[in-house]
Amino acid sequence: MSTTARHDGRTADQLRTITFEADIAPHATGSVLVSFGKTRVICAATIEPGVPTWMKQQGVKGGWLTAEYSMLPYSTHERKSRDISRGKIDGRTVEIQRLIGRSLRAVIDLSKLGQNTLWLDCDVLQADGGTRTASITGAYLAARLAVQKLLDSQKLRENPLTDSVAAVSVGVVAGRELLDIAYLEDKDAEVDFNIVMTGQGKFVEVQGSGEETTFSHDQLQSLLVLAQKGLKEVSAAQTAFLTKQLLSTLKLG
Amino acid sequence: MSTTARHDGRTADQLRTITFEADIAPHATGSVLVSFGKTRVICAATIEPGVPTWMKQQGVKGGWLTAEYSMLPYSTHERKSRDISRGKIDGRTVEIQRLIGRSLRAVIDLSKLGQNTLWLDCDVLQADGGTRTASITGAYLAARLAVQKLLDSQKLRENPLTDSVAAVSVGVVAGRELLDIAYLEDKDAEVDFNIVMTGQGKFVEVQGSGEETTFSHDQLQSLLVLAQKGLKEVSAAQTAFLTKQLLSTLKLG
Amino acid sequence: MSTTARHDGRTADQLRTITFEADIAPHATGSVLVSFGKTRVICAATIEPGVPTWMKQQGVKGGWLTAEYSMLPYSTHERKSRDISRGKIDGRTVEIQRLIGRSLRAVIDLSKLGQNTLWLDCDVLQADGGTRTASITGAYLAARLAVQKLLDSQKLRENPLTDSVAAVSVGVVAGRELLDIAYLEDKDAEVDFNIVMTGQGKFVEVQGSGEETTFSHDQLQSLLVLAQKGLKEVSAAQTAFLTKQLLSTLKLG
Amino acid sequence: MSTTARHDGRTADQLRTITFEADIAPHATGSVLVSFGKTRVICAATIEPGVPTWMKQQGVKGGWLTAEYSMLPYSTHERKSRDISRGKIDGRTVEIQRLIGRSLRAVIDLSKLGQNTLWLDCDVLQADGGTRTASITGAYLAARLAVQKLLDSQKLRENPLTDSVAAVSVGVVAGRELLDIAYLEDKDAEVDFNIVMTGQGKFVEVQGSGEETTFSHDQLQSLLVLAQKGLKEVSAAQTAFLTKQLLSTLKLG
Amino acid sequence: MSTTARHDGRTADQLRTITFEADIAPHATGSVLVSFGKTRVICAATIEPGVPTWMKQQGVKGGWLTAEYSMLPYSTHERKSRDISRGKIDGRTVEIQRLIGRSLRAVIDLSKLGQNTLWLDCDVLQADGGTRTASITGAYLAARLAVQKLLDSQKLRENPLTDSVAAVSVGVVAGRELLDIAYLEDKDAEVDFNIVMTGQGKFVEVQGSGEETTFSHDQLQSLLVLAQKGLKEVSAAQTAFLTKQLLSTLKLG
Amino acid sequence: MSTTARHDGRTADQLRTITFEADIAPHATGSVLVSFGKTRVICAATIEPGVPTWMKQQGVKGGWLTAEYSMLPYSTHERKSRDISRGKIDGRTVEIQRLIGRSLRAVIDLSKLGQNTLWLDCDVLQADGGTRTASITGAYLAARLAVQKLLDSQKLRENPLTDSVAAVSVGVVAGRELLDIAYLEDKDAEVDFNIVMTGQGKFVEVQGSGEETTFSHDQLQSLLVLAQKGLKEVSAAQTAFLTKQLLSTLKLG
Repeated sequence: MSTTARHDGRTADQLRTITFEADIAPHATGSVLVSFGKTRVICAATIEPGVPTWMKQQGVKGGWLTAEYSMLPYSTHERKSRDISRGKIDGRTVEIQRLIGRSLRAVIDLSKLGQNTLWLDCDVLQADGGTRTASITGAYLAARLAVQKLLDSQKLRENPLTDSVAAVSVGVVAGRELLDIAYLEDKDAEVDFNIVMTGQGKFVEVQGSGEETTFSHDQLQSLLVLAQKGLKEVSAAQTAFLTKQLLSTLKLG
Repeated sequence: MSTTARHDGRTADQLRTITFEADIAPHATGSVLVSFGKTRVICAATIEPGVPTWMKQQGVKGGWLTAEYSMLPYSTHERKSRDISRGKIDGRTVEIQRLIGRSLRAVIDLSKLGQNTLWLDCDVLQADGGTRTASITGAYLAARLAVQKLLDSQKLRENPLTDSVAAVSVGVVAGRELLDIAYLEDKDAEVDFNIVMTGQGKFVEVQGSGEETTFSHDQLQSLLVLAQKGLKEVSAAQTAFLTKQLLSTLKLG
Repeated sequence: MSTTARHDGRTADQLRTITFEADIAPHATGSVLVSFGKTRVICAATIEPGVPTWMKQQGVKGGWLTAEYSMLPYSTHERKSRDISRGKIDGRTVEIQRLIGRSLRAVIDLSKLGQNTLWLDCDVLQADGGTRTASITGAYLAARLAVQKLLDSQKLRENPLTDSVAAVSVGVVAGRELLDIAYLEDKDAEVDFNIVMTGQGKFVEVQGSGEETTFSHDQLQSLLVLAQKGLKEVSAAQTAFLTKQLLSTLKLG
Repeated sequence: MSTTARHDGRTADQLRTITFEADIAPHATGSVLVSFGKTRVICAATIEPGVPTWMKQQGVKGGWLTAEYSMLPYSTHERKSRDISRGKIDGRTVEIQRLIGRSLRAVIDLSKLGQNTLWLDCDVLQADGGTRTASITGAYLAARLAVQKLLDSQKLRENPLTDSVAAVSVGVVAGRELLDIAYLEDKDAEVDFNIVMTGQGKFVEVQGSGEETTFSHDQLQSLLVLAQKGLKEVSAAQTAFLTKQLLSTLKLG
Repeated sequence: MSTTARHDGRTADQLRTITFEADIAPHATGSVLVSFGKTRVICAATIEPGVPTWMKQQGVKGGWLTAEYSMLPYSTHERKSRDISRGKIDGRTVEIQRLIGRSLRAVIDLSKLGQNTLWLDCDVLQADGGTRTASITGAYLAARLAVQKLLDSQKLRENPLTDSVAAVSVGVVAGRELLDIAYLEDKDAEVDFNIVMTGQGKFVEVQGSGEETTFSHDQLQSLLVLAQKGLKEVSAAQTAFLTKQLLSTLKLG
Repeated sequence: MSTTARHDGRTADQLRTITFEADIAPHATGSVLVSFGKTRVICAATIEPGVPTWMKQQGVKGGWLTAEYSMLPYSTHERKSRDISRGKIDGRTVEIQRLIGRSLRAVIDLSKLGQNTLWLDCDVLQADGGTRTASITGAYLAARLAVQKLLDSQKLRENPLTDSVAAVSVGVVAGRELLDIAYLEDKDAEVDFNIVMTGQGKFVEVQGSGEETTFSHDQLQSLLVLAQKGLKEVSAAQTAFLTKQLLSTLKLG
């Protein structure tokens, strides 16, 4: 692994500075402003009575969890039109909100949610690469804070979260395998992976694509190792944040 | 005027605490997080080359200014569906973004913008009444900061802003005329006015409606006086903020 | 006030010729073709069983009143595309139909409508300025005729209308304050107000905007006086029309 | 043929009273209010510079003619939602506006229109059966009046209309073959035909359908005879109207 | 009638080779791949519990039958965008699917379908003229096969089909009256008719249009004779196919 | 690895029967009907002049390749509504068509396509699991046949395809790792992977998700091995098919 510093001074296997700020949107049941370097995402969890029609039709019991992802128009260097102005959600957004939803559903026992839907909204305030992995990482925290509020107010009896979940990107840029790819790196990446894992070290999702080229079995293996290294650190940051927020009441999912 | 305190302890002619925080969205040309009490709105100004097709077709010279307004889903006590999920912008949103656009165009000389469009995005992070007046007040500041950046980088030669602009709501609640109405008051308001004025004390827009009843000529006059009193204070707060932000380079429009 | 004649020979404080023609659309419960000079609008009131879903969800009793406004494609000098051809209602139309709805709801006791919706459709046959104020003025008459038919057929027990309502525009054109602005004047207006008042002289709605400039407190006061003068005449014309239509059965709301 | 009177007193082969009123929408280039009994349709012709994109792409010379058809919400006994409220044009409307367009294009030499589009708008004010045949009949008259105005103002050099065109419905109701079917008859019709012919007696369009049953070769022949009889009368009414309108300048297409 | 061979060697009154292939889409209740020469359409019938909302609202008993028609993007020489890419179904498609639906409803007793909807999907795999008439012809066969499967599995007690139905096009090309028009002929056709008849020789639908010109009473009569000749042959081909498919269980509707 | 047979008699590491049928849609430039057991997909490649607007705006040279995926309504056991009927493409479809597009772009040198777009349409005729992997596998063959036709007709000078590409699914069902998952297995799968590789054994895309649970590093490794085994066989089947189709002219990308 080359030891040349990256454009922002990081080593190849170094995360950007990760911070979490609770209660950015106090009307939500739980909310967090998550930053991975200059990438900043508002993650909010809100609970709403009722479940989707298909669950009723299919007789599925319990609750539901769904996610929405959006980039605020001023989050990118060139203004990005709102979805409603273009009249539809673009394909990339659809993929990302489905990924966030699946990732969070992997660590929740929906039967403990009651007949409720937990919405996870991720709105990107500033985009500098890795918005989907920051969203998953922050969405879990927003969900955990929301669950705590519902436990405290006795709207939930048990914590339905069964583990924590976090995500990170890895990729190959100019032949080097890099952790937590920033925008300047991403636009030239040859291979781009998003890896989602639980706090207990199990995989939830592995999505990798050769953007301009293909990749070998060896590269795949190296990237998986790099991601696992990074995800341990992200997971530790989540735990530290929640410990401080929830203090003695902490019952990590 | 009754001296009974309002639900939040204010007197009838008292504004909520107003704060402005610059650079909430650094990728925008200018941005401000504006708070009127618990109402919080992200206001961002971005400049984009080009003007709308109708301007070209009609041969209108100069630039354009337009506004978009949106409530983030978690800004209200009950989650509000995104516009794109409902497939259309609701009527209230259309009215508000047209109002913001007209208000800002009243204080800009579009011929000095060049062939550019100035976008003013107002995204409500927390809604507690008066989101449209907070949006106008903050949008002006975002525009002013954006103009300064464009002047400093010599993308603009002259400040196109000709005055400042701010807005406030007034209304009649349970028979009392109140300044800067919060959500709890607004939902029971009998009369609801939004007044937009320039820093030099000229009217830009007067919109008043008897929500559940009608109103008399005398009530109209009292409400105008109350709004003018409040707008002087809002305008002073804008000036103080800009003075601090722009320091010696301040050339208020 | 200048005594120079306007482009159509009127003095500054003179209305255009106002006419009403009943039963233009006999399948409606009540209908009127209203003309303010060359501006002609078909106003139709139809009653339909049922109320909007939100009323049921919120447990609101009584009926509902809503308005739709549309310009027929051949109403303007250049053909205007239908809403459905453009795929959406434009912002101006949304504003106008919300204004018509609010104005009519200000003079109706919805609890006396039963579980019904009163639709007020305003379709502009010819546009020459002031289509929204003509629409409100005509919509009231259509509603009043519809109510009479429902009273006569004993589908309603009591008249739910509590007052009459009418609207007029005033504005500043080339520095002069003018009543009932026609299209040629409107496109150059510096200030444009739409005022809605009841027959008993109470305000329902005041909407004023400086289109290309701002306006002073004194101008605002003069315009309000001018509008009130005009609205007395419009209201008198409504009463004369209804007296003739309803004859001895007249029970003005 | 049975001699029993129909619900409105007509014999089986009798048209309803047909009337035409010119200039119902003066901003259109030509307009007519057409009535077939209680069915009333506003037909307006407007000329607009330019032709559809596909004509340019395919290099087709000359102009274009297109039609739009709409039922005003209050034209039916139960209020009909606007197309824009339902978000799409229903299938019946699409069929009708395509039929009107084809019928009119059969009697126009598009190469004489210049690079212009002739729009024919048909808005149903009151629906009592036969709205599509009334629309075609009225649309021709609106087009003819529009052409005259364009000839008079020298915007056209030659009349592009090559013949007149009119339409009528025939059908089988309770076993009887009837001309010009009204709504009460139409809803029980077993067979329903719309026939479009030119003033010179050529067929333009024959559309027949067994609504609840099938029909025989003999029935088809009788219905064609009945339609031809009716269309001679409709065509004569068109000529009489145009003669009066155009007086000495009449140059029937 | 001229004896010159057509572009594909056929005489004026000769059909293209017609073939039917059963079970092209085994998950459908019944399906057929129908070919009229190079025109190939997948026709599938699927039964679904439930009926449209309007049937319930109007208290109509029994089942429903509806059709959808679509051209696969690669069915034409130049790729045709999918409906969803253009955001709407074009007018021609709407007309065709309404025609298919009406044609099939003419030969079914909906009261024998139970509270079910029979969907008839027609997807054009290759378009060479006459796709709507091939669709109707194939849709009947798909419906008949579906009915047999439902009878065999005792989900239906009686065959609801009351007759067979088939369709063919006829037209005037370069002055000649031709049967079963292929694409090369169709694009130059002066008159274009689609005729739908039952196996017992009754008319279901007659749709004829002068595409670039008008047509005479004599031409209409000749075209009807030509269509009837062709439809006898198409109907015989349907019977032969079904006889082979259904063997001894054949109970032709 | 358990030796119990699967529901269809296969061993855990056995593919379903794979077949390819050329020219299913002759109007396309190239087309293939691909079957993986009962899963059948029509894959068609069509070339169209022009490239997307964004390529022109960004000054990107060469051509473009894009994919569309759709399930025919009768491809599933319960009829699936068309996209246009629901008014939008569902999230799963968006993901799949983006995946097909990326996979094919990984093996094409777009600079050799000229200013053309290569469309790859995949329409599912019968769905029994693995429709996206069958689509990618068939889309490559359709593209290869299309390229050959364009080379033969000298519309292309060089083969732009740089390698072949194929895809297969692997997963964990009831604890067993299985190759090429059919529908009955898929709906109970705990882990579901889609792997895309080139004929030369390089990875193009790795997408894996724990549908109801998470998965370990060891499981991930086993699944990758299983997929690679299957993909060698799929790639060999592609080569055999193309060899037969292209005979001596074969120049595999």
